[in-house]
Amino acid sequence: MSDRLQSQLTFLLEADKMKSLYRQTYIIADESRGASMREYEGETEVHHRRENDAEHSFHLALFAMVLAEHSNEPIDILKVIKMVLVHDIVEIDAGDTYCYDVEGNKTKAARETAAADRLFGLLPEDQRDEYRALWEEFERMDTPESRFAAAMDHMQPMLLNHTKGGISWKEHGTTSDMVRGRNSCIADGSRELWEHMSRCLDDAVKNGMLK
Amino acid sequence: MSDRLQSQLTFLLEADKMKSLYRQTYIIADESRGASMREYEGETEVHHRRENDAEHSFHLALFAMVLAEHSNEPIDILKVIKMVLVHDIVEIDAGDTYCYDVEGNKTKAARETAAADRLFGLLPEDQRDEYRALWEEFERMDTPESRFAAAMDHMQPMLLNHTKGGISWKEHGTTSDMVRGRNSCIADGSRELWEHMSRCLDDAVKNGMLK
Repeated sequence: MSDRLQSQLTFLLEADKMKSLYRQTYIIADESRGASMREYEGETEVHHRRENDAEHSFHLALFAMVLAEHSNEPIDILKVIKMVLVHDIVEIDAGDTYCYDVEGNKTKAARETAAADRLFGLLPEDQRDEYRALWEEFERMDTPESRFAAAMDHMQPMLLNHTKGGISWKEHGTTSDMVRGRNSCIADGSRELWEHMSRCLDDAVKNGMLK
Repeated sequence: MSDRLQSQLTFLLEADKMKSLYRQTYIIADESRGASMREYEGETEVHHRRENDAEHSFHLALFAMVLAEHSNEPIDILKVIKMVLVHDIVEIDAGDTYCYDVEGNKTKAARETAAADRLFGLLPEDQRDEYRALWEEFERMDTPESRFAAAMDHMQPMLLNHTKGGISWKEHGTTSDMVRGRNSCIADGSRELWEHMSRCLDDAVKNGMLK
């Protein structure tokens, strides 16, 4: 096997860890405890189950693909999809930092840069450079593609949370102002989608999901 | 909100169910039982955990993006990625049919066609037609993109299984001939990748992972 293929497969197998990195957001459907584990099959007790980074990235790619027409600006959709597929890879080393965690967010940049060095560094140089540039562009939110990708990344958890009765907002005592301030960047990617999410927030407040 | 956006969001929220559809393949890393569930946090007992369709689709999109250069034929990589993102959506209604399950495979086509009608039918007509055509093309494996997408879909579980000591092969008593017969279509997408997977199989037999 060529060194090149070996590097690519090492990166792809490393990315399997995204499946064990759980976020604050919950998936919509409740699951029986045994759904994913041999030992507990047959149990029917249901639980809220958190979403992991692999599931989140899958969902974002599908969001981007389906909602592309709502972008404020023309976008290269392949670039957006590649961007959302790699944007959370750094969390394999740096962990998920909850968006309202003030302390964690102070060290986030340094932890994620070190993670990007190691993780994208597993790839052949040309791919290392391409994916790292995509991740940096995503973080900067200074191009049409990164603004739209960021809109997806903010919109998807809000939508899951709203559909699930505001479960993580309640858990963290999040307020409507916090959510609005944190997510208004959705409008930079798509004014139309932000208008819809804004109405979701009004509804969340009216129905006691958000303070 | 426009009817069009409403249809798109209904489809995207329905796709959340992919996160609860567990396959026969296991993820590589073992997980503590509590990893994803509030109630069990703090538990450290580890378990083998199955992969779900959302994680599998994420991984395939990443495989396609990273390994595109190994395709036998020139491919439109955006089309391949869209294809792998939607190729398992039908399992929301039709369930996962294990590739070596003879009885299940007899009714698979009819169950999946009904599922495609309902699930892609949630979308606006133009997207319904586009995604359904992608799914049908994937199933037919008669274009460069669908041959490469199918190669990813066959290669990824083999690679996880091989990395994890052949766990699902042992569970099902799968033989080397079965795996080789079932997955030789990888060569139609990429001779180079099939050559590598073929060596993995030789190794699996030598190390007692496969009969």
